[in-house]
Order: sequence, then C-alpha cells, then structure tokens
Amino acid sequence: MTKRSYTILGVGAVGGYYGARLAEAGHPVRWLARSDADHLRAHGLTVSSPRGDVALDDLEVFGPGEVPPPSDVVVLATKTTGTAAALERLEAAARPGSIVLVLQNGLDVEGPVADALPGRTVLGGMSFMCAGKDGPGHIAHLDYEAVTVGEHAAGGAAAGVTPAVQGVVDDLLGAGVPGEALDDLIAGRWRKLVWNIPFNGLSVVLDAGTDELMADAAALALVRTLMGEVAASAAADGHPAPADVIDVMLERTAKMTPYAPSMKQDFDARRPLELPAIYAAPLAAAARMGRAMPATAALHAELSFLDARNRAGA
Amino acid sequence: MTKRSYTILGVGAVGGYYGARLAEAGHPVRWLARSDADHLRAHGLTVSSPRGDVALDDLEVFGPGEVPPPSDVVVLATKTTGTAAALERLEAAARPGSIVLVLQNGLDVEGPVADALPGRTVLGGMSFMCAGKDGPGHIAHLDYEAVTVGEHAAGGAAAGVTPAVQGVVDDLLGAGVPGEALDDLIAGRWRKLVWNIPFNGLSVVLDAGTDELMADAAALALVRTLMGEVAASAAADGHPAPADVIDVMLERTAKMTPYAPSMKQDFDARRPLELPAIYAAPLAAAARMGRAMPATAALHAELSFLDARNRAGA
Repeated sequence: MTKRSYTILGVGAVGGYYGARLAEAGHPVRWLARSDADHLRAHGLTVSSPRGDVALDDLEVFGPGEVPPPSDVVVLATKTTGTAAALERLEAAARPGSIVLVLQNGLDVEGPVADALPGRTVLGGMSFMCAGKDGPGHIAHLDYEAVTVGEHAAGGAAAGVTPAVQGVVDDLLGAGVPGEALDDLIAGRWRKLVWNIPFNGLSVVLDAGTDELMADAAALALVRTLMGEVAASAAADGHPAPADVIDVMLERTAKMTPYAPSMKQDFDARRPLELPAIYAAPLAAAARMGRAMPATAALHAELSFLDARNRAGA
Repeated sequence: MTKRSYTILGVGAVGGYYGARLAEAGHPVRWLARSDADHLRAHGLTVSSPRGDVALDDLEVFGPGEVPPPSDVVVLATKTTGTAAALERLEAAARPGSIVLVLQNGLDVEGPVADALPGRTVLGGMSFMCAGKDGPGHIAHLDYEAVTVGEHAAGGAAAGVTPAVQGVVDDLLGAGVPGEALDDLIAGRWRKLVWNIPFNGLSVVLDAGTDELMADAAALALVRTLMGEVAASAAADGHPAPADVIDVMLERTAKMTPYAPSMKQDFDARRPLELPAIYAAPLAAAARMGRAMPATAALHAELSFLDARNRAGA
C-alpha cells in the first residue's frame, strides 16, 4: 500500500521534526521552505533526537513561488505570525479535497485557514515537544513529541474523531510519534493553552526556563493562577479540560528537561511573538463570554511591551 | 527662636536630601549612618539639585553603636527592608516624648515602629521625589520634592492634622520643601501606592523607565489597571483617593524627567526590593476585606521571583 503523501509548509522545529519522522517512515514528503530552501536542497535535513537521529538527503524542496505536486495532507507548520503570509502558498499546495493540518499554537487558528481555503478538510494539530531549530536544516529534538489532532468545525462545535483525523493520527503512530485523536479540537486547544499561557509568557518576562519557574514558590503560584484562569475559560466556553489538568501538567513539566519554550526562543531570536494566537484570542473568547482573565491580561500587556521593544531592536 | 533639631536615620537619597534641606535652613541635624559614616565625617554631604546644590561639612555623624543627643524629630529614612535592623538605633535616638517620622514607602510601615517604640508620637511621611544616591555622601536630585505627612493612629483611623504633623510640615516649608499635612495618613499611603505599585514594579519587570511605560499603549493600559485595583482597595478600606487620582498621576508622570523609580534603582544595585511594604501589605489588606487585586498579585509574584534571583546573584 502506498503511504500517503505530505507537504510541509514551514521547516522550523515543528515542521522539520514531524516531516522528518514521516519521511523516515516512508511517506513521500514535500518541503515548502523560504529562506532555507537552498540550504535544504544542498545539504538536506538532519534531526538530532534522543529517540534516534535522522538525516535526510535529496529532499523535494520548493521555494517561494514554486508549487509542489498535490499531496494527501498539507501541514501548515509556520508560526501563527506567519499564517497570513503563507496562505497563498497553502492554497496552491492544498488542492480542493485535500486535508490541511494546521499544526500551530493558540486558539482560533483554523478559522482563517478554513475561510480562505474552501473545499478542504481542515484539521487542527498541537505539538507537545521540546525542540528547537539550531540553524537551517538542523532540528534539535530534546524531549516529548506527542501530537494531538482534531477536526475543525465552523462555530467551534466538537466534530468527533473523523476519518481524516484518524488517518493523520495513524500516520503519526506509524512514524513512531504518539498521535492522539481529539473528538473536540477546541477543548484540545484550550488544554494546550493551560500550559502555554503561563510558561511561554513567564519564560519571556522573567527570562527563565521551565525549571526555574517550577522551583520558585511565587512563580509557581502565578503559574497555577494563570492555568486556573485558562481552565475556567475553557469550561465556560463549553470545552472543559479534565479536572486534574493543572496537576498533571505541572507534574509533567517538573520532569521535563529544562527548556526554553517556543516563545522564549522567538524572543531571543528577535522574532515576533505569537501573542495574537496564544493570548489575544483566548482573552477575546473570554471577553465574549463576559469573563475576565486578569492575570493573563496583565501578562499579555507585559509581553506586548517587550515584543514591541524587542522587534524595534532596542 | 531655636529651630527644632532633627536626627536622620539612613543617609540614602531620601534621608540625605531632606536632611540637607533642613540643615541648609538652619536646623541642627544629626546623621545616623552605617557604611557611609566615615565618608560623611571626612567629606561631608553634597546634593546636586535643579533647585540649587547643597554642600555640607562638619556633619554630626553617628556610626553603628553611637547614640546621638536627643532631637525633637527622628526621621526613619531607611528602606522598609531595613526597618527591622534599624529599630534598635531608632529606639536609642528617639527618646520617649519625641516625634518619629517614618519617611518610607508602602503600607502598614508605621505600626511596627509604634509598637516597638511606645511613648513616641509616630508620624508617617511620603516623599514624591525623583532622586538617587550616586555614591557615599552624594545625592542627585532630579525632579519634584514634595513630602506628605500624617499622624499614625492605631487601627488606621484618620488622626486629623495634629500639632506634630503641622510642626514637621512647617519645618519642611521653611526649608523650601513643599510639605503637605494629611488628615488621613492611610489615605495618603494608598494614594502613593496608586503610583508606586504600577511604576515601581513594571520598571523592574520590563526593565523600562517611566517614559517608556507611558509611551506604550499596552503598558499604559496595564498601569491603569493596576492603579484601578489600588484605588478600589483604598476606597473599600475607607480611605478613598480623589476620583481623578489616576488621571492626575498619569499627567504628572508624563511631564516627569524620564526616571528609574526607586525599586528599579534597588534592583539594579542588587539591593532587596521593598516588596513587603509596597506589594504584600496592600495585597494582605485587600485580602482582609475579601477583595482580589489580581494584576497586582501577578506583578508581585513576578517581582518576588526576580528579587530572589537578583539577590542570589544569578
């Protein structure tokens, strides 16, 4: 049986890692790169990982303006801050009838893609991975690699585990990646925000790794407060997280390799922060429900200030 | 008429500046110093100021363990973080019957002094000044110099403008310092916190001057949120600030010389931050009233983390 083909749009840590695992498992993979295109063509892609390194040569690389052949699944793996600029390439790569997997952080990230690309099946995916891109064509994977996948439905209803979702999850499992099907994508997005909102933001504002935040009583209490605000908004939104979500996440974080979350990596590289998807969208969703998330709003304001100064190069 | 004598405990920016102005106006002033004692004896004290420089020689300096003659007024001008260590010297300097002026930031700072030193009239004072200590015996005054003074009463009741308060205010006015008598000390303390809680904390967390915070829309919105939390707690505590306090303070801040608030100066010098007096005490007061100050609590947690790391010298 021929394995399903994938097109990966965005060859950062997320796109690079999962694309490499799928290619390693025998899936045809096309790579849509931008600044790294020439490097990927010349030198391939390497992944260092505690689960085993991967080195891929002779990649099918497509630079800006180059349209790949149709794939069964097209994965949008850019930062959310790059979605708007990537939509044209995504539309060309994902023919009507194909599956688009929005493998990004945040809330309300599938809606703009579904609106811009009618006739595609749009899935949302979340990566739970400690990894970074060391440079063009080299991904350093540190810990974890699970991916949750659910189908987008207009209005945020739970779509159930559709065949499209199950197909992508099966491909991930076949590539050794713990894939998990979500019957309620929005619940999965809120659940990931329970971690992202405290740890992404505080790692930037306090210039601290996850281990430092876990070790300080005041910081940990603030993490719990932020997590509680997110979990309460998720429940009010009709997509509650499991009752023990905070304790489970803190236990997992305590066992993590000390790690700079993606937003800290973006900040240190002076890339724009994913504030609209990770902070503004949840705050707006809460506001629509008449709910305040005051500690989250304060953190968002601090991050907005730091992001603006950081990008101005001050 | 003989001018009233003052003892200044703590020769930092606050004690140094106001002590110098009182001495310049002819008041006998005794200086209780610690590490700067030898320098002050040898080189005196200088103040640079847009209102006119001051240079004082032949100071009456008392080092640790040396007890000054009785003064009419003893001013506690250490940081609040130094109060506990200063109480013994304060008790020796302030004989029963004398006036003690607690010229410090924060809330609930007079209570411990009044409890430890029975038989003294305890006043609270707040300095509204942009100034810093450049080194031993040199104070750099940049802008503003007003001082508000009110009398401490057990239980936080408004004591009215007592003769002791009026006397100190008159001495300040005679020294060219805009002194203002408070009939309600606690209201004055809350009012100052309306400024200190946002600007002291955010200047540290965001590594930013007052001008940068005023110029950024997100930071300014957070400043207003924090100010609103403080003003609401003050009102609930029965010591409301004027209705226009936030707008007035922001207007004044916009006109200030760009400036690092005292907590930022402490942080940069790796001194302990005045978190108990400026954050923990107001939060505890609000909690006693059953009120949350969620943005203030988040900022306090961030500052606690940064203070601990900063003092550890990381």
